[in-house]
Amino acid sequence: MDVKQKLKEMSAELDGPIKSYIENEEPSNLIEATRQYPYAGGKRMRPSMVVAACRAVGGDASKAVPMAVAIEYIHNFTLIHDDLMDGDEMRRGMKTSHVVYGMPTAILAGDALFAKAYQIIGDLDIPADQMRKVMSVTSKAVWDLARGQQMDVNNESKDFIPLDYYIETIRLKTSVLFAAGAASGAIIGGASDEVVKAIQNYALSMGVAFQMYDDILGVYGDPAKTGKSAGNDIRKGKYTVMICHAHDTIKDKAVWDEFMKVFRKIDATDAEIETARKILKDCGSYDYAIELADRYTNEAIACLDCLKDSEDKEFMVELAKFAMARDV
Amino acid sequence: MDVKQKLKEMSAELDGPIKSYIENEEPSNLIEATRQYPYAGGKRMRPSMVVAACRAVGGDASKAVPMAVAIEYIHNFTLIHDDLMDGDEMRRGMKTSHVVYGMPTAILAGDALFAKAYQIIGDLDIPADQMRKVMSVTSKAVWDLARGQQMDVNNESKDFIPLDYYIETIRLKTSVLFAAGAASGAIIGGASDEVVKAIQNYALSMGVAFQMYDDILGVYGDPAKTGKSAGNDIRKGKYTVMICHAHDTIKDKAVWDEFMKVFRKIDATDAEIETARKILKDCGSYDYAIELADRYTNEAIACLDCLKDSEDKEFMVELAKFAMARDV
Repeated sequence: MDVKQKLKEMSAELDGPIKSYIENEEPSNLIEATRQYPYAGGKRMRPSMVVAACRAVGGDASKAVPMAVAIEYIHNFTLIHDDLMDGDEMRRGMKTSHVVYGMPTAILAGDALFAKAYQIIGDLDIPADQMRKVMSVTSKAVWDLARGQQMDVNNESKDFIPLDYYIETIRLKTSVLFAAGAASGAIIGGASDEVVKAIQNYALSMGVAFQMYDDILGVYGDPAKTGKSAGNDIRKGKYTVMICHAHDTIKDKAVWDEFMKVFRKIDATDAEIETARKILKDCGSYDYAIELADRYTNEAIACLDCLKDSEDKEFMVELAKFAMARDV
Repeated sequence: MDVKQKLKEMSAELDGPIKSYIENEEPSNLIEATRQYPYAGGKRMRPSMVVAACRAVGGDASKAVPMAVAIEYIHNFTLIHDDLMDGDEMRRGMKTSHVVYGMPTAILAGDALFAKAYQIIGDLDIPADQMRKVMSVTSKAVWDLARGQQMDVNNESKDFIPLDYYIETIRLKTSVLFAAGAASGAIIGGASDEVVKAIQNYALSMGVAFQMYDDILGVYGDPAKTGKSAGNDIRKGKYTVMICHAHDTIKDKAVWDEFMKVFRKIDATDAEIETARKILKDCGSYDYAIELADRYTNEAIACLDCLKDSEDKEFMVELAKFAMARDV
């Protein structure tokens, strides 16, 4: 299966629904701002996973499509707020919400998208027990997303964070919404609690692997493909598996000091970045990060053993592998 | 009925539930920030109305209490975000969220409270059709709140706004959450769609009257009681019924110019404020605003004719009257 092609097809099918829930109303600047992120596209991995999980458990995908839209709106609401609090000015080649519309509108657009997501969930054509489960898993996920983002903000001012704390941060910041989407799809598809749990665990592990590989790309990725300057995560002093591992592994103080001279040095030259990169490779941190991300990917895939073979199961397996194989 | 006393009693009963849903978790600064506003008290008018509406239609109040908490959390989430975007530094004698915890945490605390509200709603012990209705009315209300707040932000940079646009702004900014709370209480109490609609309309009109009277207090209130400098709404150039009316009524350009010299003059002296106040009284704008707020109050009360007499109906009637009779 060409998973990138499949993802493109699923994304194209979701495009119409994603653009169908926000009507023209007053005031137009707010409405425009709520549309900016979800209408701009992106990989649409989260909503695709909702639909795939529903079909993979034998469910009717048409019932899961509105839920896919709700998950995409929630994802975009958090992106708008994260961009504002992180002070990021660009996303996917476009100016971020607060840059285009100002801080108040960016806050309100996020809030409004969140509200719209719940309006859609309340209108889902599903039995009451499924509704309760979807509500519970989704609301808990957004609560956890806020916790994860706060931990990320807190981490910036810490001298060091241990590996397990870092993993907990990315689990909350990234995985729980993947997991809520996948679980919701399975719930709407009529899966047993056991299967829902397995699919939720699949997405949790996949999300961790995805973020870990994202972090590797942030340091070693090809800037021509990722669109980001590859050293920036080092310049910004972003914690990753590699940094946590290097901290525990490098015993030669001179080497560690050399690395720390570059880490968080916002104007580090390309040569300095190259030195930092080499240190991370030499001490085995790069290999360790790849191996760990691989382990999470395999754990994710193993969770899907409970499903019968199907194109959607294959898609979910390939999606987990794709998290590790992509160059962007 | 001593409505202030009754409100105090109901508020005291809700205090425990309001403080029972946010557990200790990591990271502690976010958890603290989510607790700050809801734990600080306030009049608790919105949650009290949820419970009163449920009982007034013959329902079991214990089933409405969690919904009352959810409405209070939603109200507080919007206060946190509004304070941030309005740049307000004090609320009810305490420093606002972004002042205490910083901008990122204030955004996240609001988001998290919103998520918690929906987690509570998903756990309500009510039938599926009621759940759908509560979800719909609540989500639509938050969407509308964002629209109202955006209109308010937009209004600041406008030269003038007509009265009906001003009323629409406060309907969205203030009334819809009162209405969602009251309607949810009635829905959970098992009321017919017709009665739910009547109670929703009651709260919509009450909310408009409430905000109109708030605006009057912002200009003519006793600073010793309101805790705000009475002229500040004129200094800040806040639109109110009085300003809209004065704009349409004052034909003498010299008088209007004299008023506009003070309106939006952030460092206006007390003597200048007194002049502006006198102009609003002389042209009948004060009386007009009182009359209009009165009309909304009476409309609100008339909506309750469909209810049998009860202590809770009386409370709702008195609450509408209280909106006009309070000095703070």
